[in-house]
Amino acid sequence: MPRDSADSGFIDALSHHFPADMFSRAEQSYLEEPRGRYQGARGFVARPRSTEEVSALVKACGEAGVGIVPYGGGTGLVAGQIAPEGEPDMPLILSLERMNTIRAVYPQENVLIADAGVILANIQKAAEDVDRLFPLSLASEGSARIGGLLGTNAGGVNVLRYGNTRDLCLGLEVVMPDGSIWNGLKRLRKDNTGYDLRNLMIGSEGTLGVITGASLKLFPRPASIGTAVFVIRDAEAALELLSLAKSQLGESISAFELMHGNGLDFLQQTMPDVRKPFGDYHPEWMILMDIGLPKGLDPQEALENLFVSAEAEGIVSDAVIAQSETQRNDFWAVRELIPIANRQIGAVSSHDVSVPLSELPHFIARVWQSIAQVGEFRINCFGHVGDGNLHCNVFPPEGKSRDLFLEETKQIKRMVHDIANELGGTFSAEHGVGRAKKADLARYGDPAKLAAMRAIKDALDPKGIMNPGAVLS
Amino acid sequence: MPRDSADSGFIDALSHHFPADMFSRAEQSYLEEPRGRYQGARGFVARPRSTEEVSALVKACGEAGVGIVPYGGGTGLVAGQIAPEGEPDMPLILSLERMNTIRAVYPQENVLIADAGVILANIQKAAEDVDRLFPLSLASEGSARIGGLLGTNAGGVNVLRYGNTRDLCLGLEVVMPDGSIWNGLKRLRKDNTGYDLRNLMIGSEGTLGVITGASLKLFPRPASIGTAVFVIRDAEAALELLSLAKSQLGESISAFELMHGNGLDFLQQTMPDVRKPFGDYHPEWMILMDIGLPKGLDPQEALENLFVSAEAEGIVSDAVIAQSETQRNDFWAVRELIPIANRQIGAVSSHDVSVPLSELPHFIARVWQSIAQVGEFRINCFGHVGDGNLHCNVFPPEGKSRDLFLEETKQIKRMVHDIANELGGTFSAEHGVGRAKKADLARYGDPAKLAAMRAIKDALDPKGIMNPGAVLS
Repeated sequence: MPRDSADSGFIDALSHHFPADMFSRAEQSYLEEPRGRYQGARGFVARPRSTEEVSALVKACGEAGVGIVPYGGGTGLVAGQIAPEGEPDMPLILSLERMNTIRAVYPQENVLIADAGVILANIQKAAEDVDRLFPLSLASEGSARIGGLLGTNAGGVNVLRYGNTRDLCLGLEVVMPDGSIWNGLKRLRKDNTGYDLRNLMIGSEGTLGVITGASLKLFPRPASIGTAVFVIRDAEAALELLSLAKSQLGESISAFELMHGNGLDFLQQTMPDVRKPFGDYHPEWMILMDIGLPKGLDPQEALENLFVSAEAEGIVSDAVIAQSETQRNDFWAVRELIPIANRQIGAVSSHDVSVPLSELPHFIARVWQSIAQVGEFRINCFGHVGDGNLHCNVFPPEGKSRDLFLEETKQIKRMVHDIANELGGTFSAEHGVGRAKKADLARYGDPAKLAAMRAIKDALDPKGIMNPGAVLS
Repeated sequence: MPRDSADSGFIDALSHHFPADMFSRAEQSYLEEPRGRYQGARGFVARPRSTEEVSALVKACGEAGVGIVPYGGGTGLVAGQIAPEGEPDMPLILSLERMNTIRAVYPQENVLIADAGVILANIQKAAEDVDRLFPLSLASEGSARIGGLLGTNAGGVNVLRYGNTRDLCLGLEVVMPDGSIWNGLKRLRKDNTGYDLRNLMIGSEGTLGVITGASLKLFPRPASIGTAVFVIRDAEAALELLSLAKSQLGESISAFELMHGNGLDFLQQTMPDVRKPFGDYHPEWMILMDIGLPKGLDPQEALENLFVSAEAEGIVSDAVIAQSETQRNDFWAVRELIPIANRQIGAVSSHDVSVPLSELPHFIARVWQSIAQVGEFRINCFGHVGDGNLHCNVFPPEGKSRDLFLEETKQIKRMVHDIANELGGTFSAEHGVGRAKKADLARYGDPAKLAAMRAIKDALDPKGIMNPGAVLS
């Protein structure tokens, strides 16, 4: 564990070796996280401009035994980016925001190489500029940075077709805990030369090194895209629709998102001007679906055909198929505003679980049943159902504040995670462990895996300076 | 490093704790590898039937300080599966061949769970039986076992569309070097709970543990498939054709294989009865291409359209499009028999390199040029060009034996790997490191990565019992 603090004495001593604007007192923005459950200690932030500067910083911190918290866009939902108040040794916040250059684009190879601090939306845009697609897409794409997205192996809405962030990465540049630079920015689809350090770094949440650059996969843009919202019979019908859609459309389905009527109610309460797919009618269960097709196929026709056969089988009762880019954006705005509406309502408990696809109906039924036994809560269960990943969030009864239910919060969190675990699922599908879910990792993690993680952490970061207190205790 | 041998004393002592048929003297088949460059020491083989038996064996070997060589189908091309003669401590060969049960199939989830010893062709068949596809495909699929394919992260002909073996795996069961069992057989598409132990084990070639089971991804079968062989203008035209094909067919291209006229010549010499795509005409450069399309598109038509536009641009001069399943199989038989013909001819040097896609033409030109300076060799350069992966093999002049060129072998090997490395490529795209390419790893590997590999190996296998002598020295 770190044995010293990044206090003003340490920063003063260090500042002689770096450009004058390298260090500053951390502004409020570095001390907050979106869920508002952790408050950062008011320490210092370093903002390097190059991999070499990151290397020098890590070396200096290693020598002094000072911890480092790598910081991307600050959008993480499990407080992996926060150095919390009240801990004995205050770490240095290492922000990658100044390393925001797209280093190279190779359209013919479908490869893009970026600094870790590039904002996701800018990578999407650079891909689009050469008629390619970088498919990673999530609500925070306007501020999340690629280094943090890799560090947490972010998910999002296109995992069904294109995989998680790890699946979109060909190579990494990483400053290791001893300050050495691993130059692994390969542009190769195949490279079987030793252990898979790339995937080990991805998803390690800054506890094994600082990602400074990444070589990313681009994809051809589908010739045409289509979007629809279906009203489904019940939660179980989501799987039936997915199965039918897969049989008709193969791998063309890029997003398959569950939405619940409570989400539309919350949206109506908090943002009444947002246009909703069925107006004032808030169906209980809906699926928002995106497809991307090759040349020669018509997405409207494909979605209409799907609706006709799904209606005949009693899976869906209604649907709207986007007739324009505007309508498409409207549908997606609803999906992306639901989490913001949720936050304004104030959840008693938020979850990011995944279960095996065929266990989804049992999961939903058991969660509903168990929560009903605790009290009269409202549930908004939504998310990436095509990946088996649900954000099943629990809200207080109308008119009551979540602050009245602190005991119930603990009880519900445990229940939901226990149910996911019993069904072969996980307590963290896409958000990671960070600081918020360390106890869950210790409780649900496989003992042999936890022992291996501990051994790897101690081997690569013997001084424990990398993101101390995150993931592992 | 191991400090004791799996000699008859050790086996006698151990055999009381296991079923009578657990151990036997290793038959010749365990002592050979396909390239014939290594000869195994005549030691003992253990053939466990369960994960618990593997665990007990690993524990016992750990206590005695005896090494273990995990053994799948024996088809590896870099001698990772061989305990070579003449080393001080003879390891135990641990064959997974009796663990050959498909544990479960979940068609709705597109998941299959198999023991490590299941032969690839049987997994493909089990997927087909539920109208699904397991896309891993390579020449040795009739004998390679899934544990070995995962251990080496095998590639093959469908990587372009479906990825390497690691991309086809959702979860693993592994016996760790201390004998503990990591139960990671999840059926989840998303699980962000700690370090990516799965990908660390995949491709570690048995040096970090013994894979005993795997949870694998299945895919929808394409509604229709098409196959064609194109005669291309020159090696550079391969990239132009790939680019054009991607723009017309998006991600529908499942295989894009380069073939060279010398390969057809060798086939003619060694297996004259094999039907070749253009009969006696052996074009210099050809592409064998597979596409799989969704409903509503016609593969013949798609391939014809591609030919017309490629011919108009001067990329291709001729093509045959398979008109039947038989003709399709004929084309693929040629592709898969070329490596066997190569072995009969006897290569001076064989390679498994990959380079960034846009460097392929430079790579081929530089290799040709450099080898011409060494002498009058024949080159058969073929393989998975869509992935940037070429098997660029060098043969003696007609009528001469490769044994006359031992000095040139070393020189050529070094030259080809140097060129690949200079162009940002790798000396091992899909075969791994094993024992045959350890010196290359030490020469070309990134120092920070090598240090991390060493630290991880020592942390997880402090006694060095797992596949001693493979990958790392």
